[in-house]
Amino acid sequence: MTDTRVPFDDLVQMLAAIFLRQGLPEHIAGILAANCAACQRDGALSHGVFRIPGYVSTINSGWGQPEAMPVIDPGDGALIGVDARGGFAQVALDHARALLLDRVRAQGIAALSIRHSQHFSALWPDVEPFAENGLVALSVVNSMAVVAPAPGAAPVFGTNPMGFSCPRDGQPPYTWDQAASALAHGDVQIAAREGHMLPADAGVDAHGQPTGDPAKILDGGALLPFGGHKGASIAMTIEILAAAFTGGAFSAEVDWTDHPGARIPLTGQFLLVMDPSRGGTGFAARVAQLSDTVRAAGQQRLPGDRRHRIRADAQARGVALSPDDLTMLNSYL
Amino acid sequence: MTDTRVPFDDLVQMLAAIFLRQGLPEHIAGILAANCAACQRDGALSHGVFRIPGYVSTINSGWGQPEAMPVIDPGDGALIGVDARGGFAQVALDHARALLLDRVRAQGIAALSIRHSQHFSALWPDVEPFAENGLVALSVVNSMAVVAPAPGAAPVFGTNPMGFSCPRDGQPPYTWDQAASALAHGDVQIAAREGHMLPADAGVDAHGQPTGDPAKILDGGALLPFGGHKGASIAMTIEILAAAFTGGAFSAEVDWTDHPGARIPLTGQFLLVMDPSRGGTGFAARVAQLSDTVRAAGQQRLPGDRRHRIRADAQARGVALSPDDLTMLNSYL
Repeated sequence: MTDTRVPFDDLVQMLAAIFLRQGLPEHIAGILAANCAACQRDGALSHGVFRIPGYVSTINSGWGQPEAMPVIDPGDGALIGVDARGGFAQVALDHARALLLDRVRAQGIAALSIRHSQHFSALWPDVEPFAENGLVALSVVNSMAVVAPAPGAAPVFGTNPMGFSCPRDGQPPYTWDQAASALAHGDVQIAAREGHMLPADAGVDAHGQPTGDPAKILDGGALLPFGGHKGASIAMTIEILAAAFTGGAFSAEVDWTDHPGARIPLTGQFLLVMDPSRGGTGFAARVAQLSDTVRAAGQQRLPGDRRHRIRADAQARGVALSPDDLTMLNSYL
Repeated sequence: MTDTRVPFDDLVQMLAAIFLRQGLPEHIAGILAANCAACQRDGALSHGVFRIPGYVSTINSGWGQPEAMPVIDPGDGALIGVDARGGFAQVALDHARALLLDRVRAQGIAALSIRHSQHFSALWPDVEPFAENGLVALSVVNSMAVVAPAPGAAPVFGTNPMGFSCPRDGQPPYTWDQAASALAHGDVQIAAREGHMLPADAGVDAHGQPTGDPAKILDGGALLPFGGHKGASIAMTIEILAAAFTGGAFSAEVDWTDHPGARIPLTGQFLLVMDPSRGGTGFAARVAQLSDTVRAAGQQRLPGDRRHRIRADAQARGVALSPDDLTMLNSYL
C-alpha cells in the first residue's frame, strides 16, 4: 500500500478536529494540530501523527489541564515567566511569543521560563520560527525519569531534549533537536517490538548493568545519557534549567500513577532567544560559511538537511500519510 | 620526590612574577596568575602550572596582543560586547564583570560576547564565581581546528569547551567544564608520549579512518566529537556562539604559521549569566535536592566534587607542586 499525500492545511484541519472532539478549545486544538502536522510534513515521524493516540490517551486520563490557558509573569526585564497551569508548552510559547520578541528586540537577549507544562512534540518547531525571523534560539525540556546518570544507577533524568536554531544566509536555518539520552524512548519501544538489539551503551538493565537489549531496558532498566559522563552533565543541566530554574517539576517527580493512560510529562521548558544583529557581524553569512566549511571537510549532511528536503517535497506533493496512519486518524473522528 | 606545598598567595605571586618578566602589565599578569594558580590549587593540573611554558612560548612568539586592554561595547540592553583586541579572555571578563552583573541584576539575564580573545585555561574559573554570587552561568569558547565533525572528515572544530555553574544550597556550586571533543588535546599528547592507546572512537587518522592510536591522531589526523553526531552538533554550535555570534574567528581560521611557538588560539567566548532569584522558586535548594537524588540513585560522584575536595585540602595544606613543576617555574624567574 502506498502513502496518501494530503495537503498540509487539510492535515492541520483533520488533527484540529480530533483535538476538538477531545474537548480542547479551538485555539489550543489549532496550535497542537499545526505543530503535529509540521512534524509529519518534515518526516519527523516519531513526533508526527504517530503521537495522536498518546495525546488522546493523556487527555482522556484527566492528567494535567490540557484546556488551561497560560498566565504570563511579564516581569520588567529580559526574563519572562509563564505558568502553563498544566497545559501545553506550545500554547504557553504562543501566548508569550509577542512579549518575548519585544524583549529580545529591546535587550538583544531574552528568555522564557515555562513551568507546569506538557510537551509531547519535537523541539525544532519551537526554535526554528525564531531563526526564520533572524534570531538565535536554544531550548530545553525535561520529561520523565527514564535515564540513569551512569551504569549502576537508577533512572533520574528524562530523555531531556535540547533544540537549537539560527539563521543561515542562502540556506534554511541551521537547526538541531536531540535527546540527552543515547536514544529516544520511542526507539527502544520500536526495537523491543521488532526484536532488534541496540548499541551496547544504550541503557542498563534492572540491575544497573549496561545492555543493548531493549526488553531489558524497558523491564525495570533505564536508558543511558549520550556521550557518557559528558552527556550526563548535560542531562542534569537540562533538569536544572527546565525545572529548577522555571519552577517546574523534575523528571523524577512526575507521578501519573493516578491517571492511567497519561503519557505526557508535566514539567517545564526553558527557551533562550538572542538577536545576532546586535553584534553587526554578518552572523547569518558566517553560519553559512561554517556550514560550507563542514560540508567541504567531508560531512555532507548537517542536522536539518533531511527534514528540510522532505518538507520541500511535502510542500510540492502533499504530506505523506500511510494507510495505517489514515485508519488511526479516522478512528478518532 | 614528594610534592612541595606552597601557600596559594605565594603561588599567585610566583606566577605573576613570571608573567611580568614576559613583559605583561601588572594588572594582566595578576589576572592570569590567579587563574592558573586556582587550576593548580583545585587539582585541575592540565590547566595549572603545566600551561606556563605554553603561555611564555606564545607571548614570545608575537602572536596576539597579550598586553592589550579590552574595549567594551556596552550597548543599552542585556547583551554586552567586548573586543579583547588580541588579549586574554579572562582580562576581558574581568573588565566587563561589573557591567555584566549590573545588567543581570536589572534584566534577570545578560550575556557577554567576547571577540578577538585568547583563552588557554579551564572554563570553570570563568563561571563558578557567578554561582558563588547566586547566579547561573554558562560559557563556551572555540579554539583551533583539531576536531573532525565525523569519521571521514577533516578537522574543522576546536575542542570547544563548555562550562556551567549554578548555586546549590549547603554544597559548593554545581559546576562542570568539558570539551566538545572525545578527549582534550593534551590527553592525546600525553598518551602518545607514554605509548597508551585511546578509546577507538577518540579520533581519526590522516585518512579519516577511526583510530585510538594517539600517534596517528597527531600525525595529520584529528579528534572526534564526544557522543557522535550529537556532540558534533554541540561542537558546531559552540563555533556559532563563540565565533559567529561574538564576531571572533572560527577555529578553522586560526593561522599562526607566522608565529612559531604560538599555542593559544585567538577566537571568541560567549558567556550567559542568569539570576535564578527572579523566579522565586528556591532554585539553589532545588539544585541541592536534584544532586541528592542523583547520588541516592547510585552516581556518587558529581562533576566538581573531586576538584572541591582537592581545593579544601590545598586551602589547609597549601597547593601541591611537583619537583619538576618547581624547577620549571624557577627557570622562568
